[in-house]
Amino acid sequence: MLRLFRRGGRPRAASPAITPRSEAVASVRVDLVQLTPAPDAFLGQAGYLTLVLFENLGRAVQAAPTTAAKTALSRATAQVLEAHEGLVTEMLGLGIDPVAAMDPFRAGLDEFQRRTRGADWPEILVTCYLTTGFLADFFTALAGGLPQGLADRIALLLDVDRGEEVLENELRALIEASPRLASRLALWGRRLIGDTMLVARSALAIEGRVAGEPGIDRIEPAFNELIGAHTRRMDALGLTA
Amino acid sequence: MLRLFRRGGRPRAASPAITPRSEAVASVRVDLVQLTPAPDAFLGQAGYLTLVLFENLGRAVQAAPTTAAKTALSRATAQVLEAHEGLVTEMLGLGIDPVAAMDPFRAGLDEFQRRTRGADWPEILVTCYLTTGFLADFFTALAGGLPQGLADRIALLLDVDRGEEVLENELRALIEASPRLASRLALWGRRLIGDTMLVARSALAIEGRVAGEPGIDRIEPAFNELIGAHTRRMDALGLTA
Repeated sequence: MLRLFRRGGRPRAASPAITPRSEAVASVRVDLVQLTPAPDAFLGQAGYLTLVLFENLGRAVQAAPTTAAKTALSRATAQVLEAHEGLVTEMLGLGIDPVAAMDPFRAGLDEFQRRTRGADWPEILVTCYLTTGFLADFFTALAGGLPQGLADRIALLLDVDRGEEVLENELRALIEASPRLASRLALWGRRLIGDTMLVARSALAIEGRVAGEPGIDRIEPAFNELIGAHTRRMDALGLTA
Repeated sequence: MLRLFRRGGRPRAASPAITPRSEAVASVRVDLVQLTPAPDAFLGQAGYLTLVLFENLGRAVQAAPTTAAKTALSRATAQVLEAHEGLVTEMLGLGIDPVAAMDPFRAGLDEFQRRTRGADWPEILVTCYLTTGFLADFFTALAGGLPQGLADRIALLLDVDRGEEVLENELRALIEASPRLASRLALWGRRLIGDTMLVARSALAIEGRVAGEPGIDRIEPAFNELIGAHTRRMDALGLTA
């Protein structure tokens, strides 16, 4: 995503501490800040989610058919784990018990992981590429509604190299070698996005809110923007979203 | 291991940069330094091995039945990955292509991993606890035969928190709750040590060497020492080695 925008030559925003990796984030943030949950819920969910994304990348490392892919993916895995540890550190600093904060999200996110695990190396790659991209964009945008200092720190924490380049390169090579694989992966990508959007939606503080209230009506455009970024990720692989 | 020795009240050696986490390492090092392979072979094997140990810990994170165990193990996983990255950085600094250096060890270590993966959460824990402990001790000792500056840096790199405490606590709780599990895990531990020793032995530069040559006769006592450390790890769990 980052690379796509950079290629497009669009300038990045100025403010350094909170400049997001993707420009979609900036516009989505405006829409979502009124729906950001309290810090403990945000950090608990983001904390458990980074564990899930780490586990997915770990499975990609395990499944990698070459040493080069293994070691490149292990770097991304380490970065996602660092984000997890950073979130745990934030919780401790705020006097939030990390385990108690993460536990309520465990069942839902474990189920998400089970549904999106993928059957083989290409599917695991697509899972990592698409779900990590979408959810990192989403949570980075959502972090904008946290108290100011915390918001900036979280945006930095989540702005990690999640291995998009190596994932993209590996997937492109696989897809170029097998057009049949492309249609299977396109299908897989479409299935993934549904489950991923459910996770994102469940993170919003919208319980009891009704249409017309500030914030609530902005979910739709925010998600359209995130889906746009998803479509560009699929395009980058030559897949139809 | 570290904790066992500390409990025993034995003082640690003085030299700070290369003080090993376990005292077994210090005595084994004397025996092995003449059998240390060239830097590229050492770093390639240690580099791929840390990936394998990381993958095992990653499987433990995935299998962990509680959020607390998950997040504690993820910290150990991150440390082992850092060791891997440190080894890759060392290779790059020495002009060694990391992938080319690691590749020759891939098949053997993948097979080791396949044989030691474990069927469920308790077995995965035992695998992480015993094989990571043994091999970290072994490679730290073996690093003593590398050129001086490199030897010290590698000893520091490998001296990471590999999650022994959380692994030990989780295992003790499981074993106390089920004596039948203890006998299954004791059997598993005995099987693991055989495969682990084969990996260690294959790392020694002993091709073409014969009994009577300097170094070669010291394998036996060195391995006895490492097996002693293994036995103490089993004891710590209440298992018969």
